Amino acid sequence: MPFWKLVLEYEGTDFAGWQVQPDARTVQGELNRALSTVLRETVRVTGAGRTDAGVHALGQVASFSSEVDVAASLRSINAVLPDDVIVREAVAARDDFHARRDAVRRHYRYRLHPGPTALERRTCLVVRPWPDLEAMREGARHLPGSRDFVSFASSPEPGESTHCVLERVDIIEEGSTWNVEVTANRFLRKMVRTLVGTLLEVGWGNRPPEWIRDVIQARDRREAGPVIAPQGLFLVRVDYPGEGTGMEESA
Amino acid sequence: MPFWKLVLEYEGTDFAGWQVQPDARTVQGELNRALSTVLRETVRVTGAGRTDAGVHALGQVASFSSEVDVAASLRSINAVLPDDVIVREAVAARDDFHARRDAVRRHYRYRLHPGPTALERRTCLVVRPWPDLEAMREGARHLPGSRDFVSFASSPEPGESTHCVLERVDIIEEGSTWNVEVTANRFLRKMVRTLVGTLLEVGWGNRPPEWIRDVIQARDRREAGPVIAPQGLFLVRVDYPGEGTGMEESA
Repeated sequence: MPFWKLVLEYEGTDFAGWQVQPDARTVQGELNRALSTVLRETVRVTGAGRTDAGVHALGQVASFSSEVDVAASLRSINAVLPDDVIVREAVAARDDFHARRDAVRRHYRYRLHPGPTALERRTCLVVRPWPDLEAMREGARHLPGSRDFVSFASSPEPGESTHCVLERVDIIEEGSTWNVEVTANRFLRKMVRTLVGTLLEVGWGNRPPEWIRDVIQARDRREAGPVIAPQGLFLVRVDYPGEGTGMEESA
Repeated sequence: MPFWKLVLEYEGTDFAGWQVQPDARTVQGELNRALSTVLRETVRVTGAGRTDAGVHALGQVASFSSEVDVAASLRSINAVLPDDVIVREAVAARDDFHARRDAVRRHYRYRLHPGPTALERRTCLVVRPWPDLEAMREGARHLPGSRDFVSFASSPEPGESTHCVLERVDIIEEGSTWNVEVTANRFLRKMVRTLVGTLLEVGWGNRPPEWIRDVIQARDRREAGPVIAPQGLFLVRVDYPGEGTGMEESA
């Protein structure tokens, strides 16, 4: 049975997150329904990341297997999907391709906006007072590394590993927003929103930049800052072996 | 009585346009209501441009007079306004300042998107097939000038002048969209949407670039292309004497 890789864009505002739930509108649920309708078979997709309610995606990845030529049906699939989610690409994948298990790297973005905004209100966090970005950058330098990030995880499952390889935390201006760009092999629950919430404590001068190192070392969620709102967060891209930045494992 | 200049941002999606109408939700209506509530007096604002239903603004300008310090009440005004319109700036203006009459130049942007999009669906037009932008640029070169633009005006009032000084029509890439940037001293009804709709006929190869010159010279609305959808259009900025690009009349 051929495997398919879908690249998805969605606005999370009106979704109860990625994962199928009874009696809730979810991205996975809408996608399963649209694919099943168009391909005329029962489809259950797997997603690379389980984005929370209100979180957006520019490049979420989903996988499933089907004998039908999904790429040829792309336009029909998008016509059936609601307008807040689209399939950007549908490509044939290698055997047994699994969007979550095979992913080697995820890229998230959190968008901070310096003043009130009407046009971007669903896709950024308005931050007041505006933080000291240099202090945030100095704090962020303590984060990258291969280590336990349990201090930034909301209710990890018992026995679940909380080790991640965090490659990058950068703060970059783009148009009207300042974006915190975070890349890691994997992310824990609400990790990006907690990382940025913790960096904001530094940006507001409530804590010194070195405090970030203390939070990591404490291995205690209570030491970190608050989980900030979902609407600023985007799953930007997911990397798989043999593509992307050239930093992945050799094949 | 002191005069005030407000700079406004709004998402036009859920508004029946700028201008107050009975039984319709309009930007001017919401603004009048919020200002009257916060300033505790009856306020009727004047707008620089009467944007249509579904058209957005990054920098609409409104004026009114009030003895109250409006700038000091900015946060209260934004708290009372619905979240799809905000006042970005409130500044004291010179005597008798009138947002529409005093404006010397308006800048509009029409955003074209090359494929389906979930995140930007309210703020651009998805164009298919994708047009030849070089052909559109070649056609656009015929537009700037001081002349009668009646061919691009929807139902002008009898006796109304249809003469405009069009300074600029450029097509510029920005992020995921290609933007048609149009600047003129004044605009006629649905003029930008008709200009871009006409240029798209050239971009799709239905007409040669020189056809734009014929459309202008015909002085007949039936010669131009269709009015395209409002959601790609933004009122970006309005210039007044003594500010802006340095091209305005000497004081």
